[in-house]
Amino acid sequence: MKVIAIDSSGLVASVAVVEDDVLTGEYNVQYKKTHSQTLLPMLDELKKMVELDLSTVDAIALSAGPGSFTGLRIGSATAKGLGLAMDVPLVEIPTLDGLACNLYGTDKLICPLMDARRNQVYTGIYEYTRVPKDTVSYALKSILPQCAISIDEIAERCNEQGREVIFLGDGVPVFAGRLKELVQVPYGFAPAHMNRQRAAAFAPLAIQYLSEGKCVAARDHAPEYLRLSQAEREKLEK
Amino acid sequence: MKVIAIDSSGLVASVAVVEDDVLTGEYNVQYKKTHSQTLLPMLDELKKMVELDLSTVDAIALSAGPGSFTGLRIGSATAKGLGLAMDVPLVEIPTLDGLACNLYGTDKLICPLMDARRNQVYTGIYEYTRVPKDTVSYALKSILPQCAISIDEIAERCNEQGREVIFLGDGVPVFAGRLKELVQVPYGFAPAHMNRQRAAAFAPLAIQYLSEGKCVAARDHAPEYLRLSQAEREKLEK
Repeated sequence: MKVIAIDSSGLVASVAVVEDDVLTGEYNVQYKKTHSQTLLPMLDELKKMVELDLSTVDAIALSAGPGSFTGLRIGSATAKGLGLAMDVPLVEIPTLDGLACNLYGTDKLICPLMDARRNQVYTGIYEYTRVPKDTVSYALKSILPQCAISIDEIAERCNEQGREVIFLGDGVPVFAGRLKELVQVPYGFAPAHMNRQRAAAFAPLAIQYLSEGKCVAARDHAPEYLRLSQAEREKLEK
Repeated sequence: MKVIAIDSSGLVASVAVVEDDVLTGEYNVQYKKTHSQTLLPMLDELKKMVELDLSTVDAIALSAGPGSFTGLRIGSATAKGLGLAMDVPLVEIPTLDGLACNLYGTDKLICPLMDARRNQVYTGIYEYTRVPKDTVSYALKSILPQCAISIDEIAERCNEQGREVIFLGDGVPVFAGRLKELVQVPYGFAPAHMNRQRAAAFAPLAIQYLSEGKCVAARDHAPEYLRLSQAEREKLEK
């Protein structure tokens, strides 16, 4: 199966083409441009470089939220447009699950942290469980599904687990000092090539979901914001 | 520190810009084009996308061999040209070490396999050792440094270790059947986003080497082929 995967949930713009266990190509940029300047031009550039025949693509996989509201809307609009035009379904990957995929197969706990402002992080706690068949593989399992909570609360939840944790995501540079004060289990940070959104990383999970029929029609997709937008919040407060 | 990292040792063409723990951008393609069609155009495209000021780059990191002879020459020529023009040193990463970096922090053994033809693989056995400081990090260690040996021999060396092994590289699809016959320890294969050359993956190691002064002048770099080329072999045989 072949998927185009995209992520624009944070500062990173990320596109990938994956066919079964082959990463045909990917393009990732973490730079102060808006996703409207990066995402589609990058996908177009990649499509040309690997001479991608769009009629051979089985689905569009996307980071479906939470994240930057504008970023998610650009990603969702792009995925819906592609899905409708190409008549293929969308595979929605929760953003934090997608981030955890960067650390496939680790024996440590994975805690992605995205700065959600207003004293919160989008976060979760994940682990990879061993699936022994002819060859060993690893399945992603959420211990704490993605949510919006305070950094103090997620640190406490990590401490309760009593196991080494790897933190990653754009929340790490923001909250590293606070983690040092709060986290009592051994912990570390993912290195540069694993510490931000990467569409290629969740593409194998998307291919698995697609093979299990876990996908939606392009018209039915909507991003998962997890929280109200500022405009909705202010309207409610009035 | 900021590095441009490139890899053209196999079928993949890979370029990345990494500054300390930030992956500013990367572009990876695994497609039936020659590296002369991909590597520099990809780097030029990435440079424009992230508005890279070349005068801010501290070094060029490259996959220094073994691998495809033509691929290595294109990568080395590109890195030498950039290094000379930009007056920065080169950081040479052994290709198999670079491949192992895809699996940063794993507790399993890592065995990259590149099809070297003539009944051999370029391979090695690696592990990540825990470095506990304020925060935990992991250092790459070679148990068997990169070498050209038969698939039977590397399977035997893995069996001797008595620990779970993750295989990756373009040798996996070629030798999966043979591994099934030979390997007696639990083993698995890296997923699509971790199973081929990726310049971004060895860039953090290159930044570490650079900070330790482990680099060479561009004029002094030569790729490490590990074996004689076909032309040299045939000349010797005469």
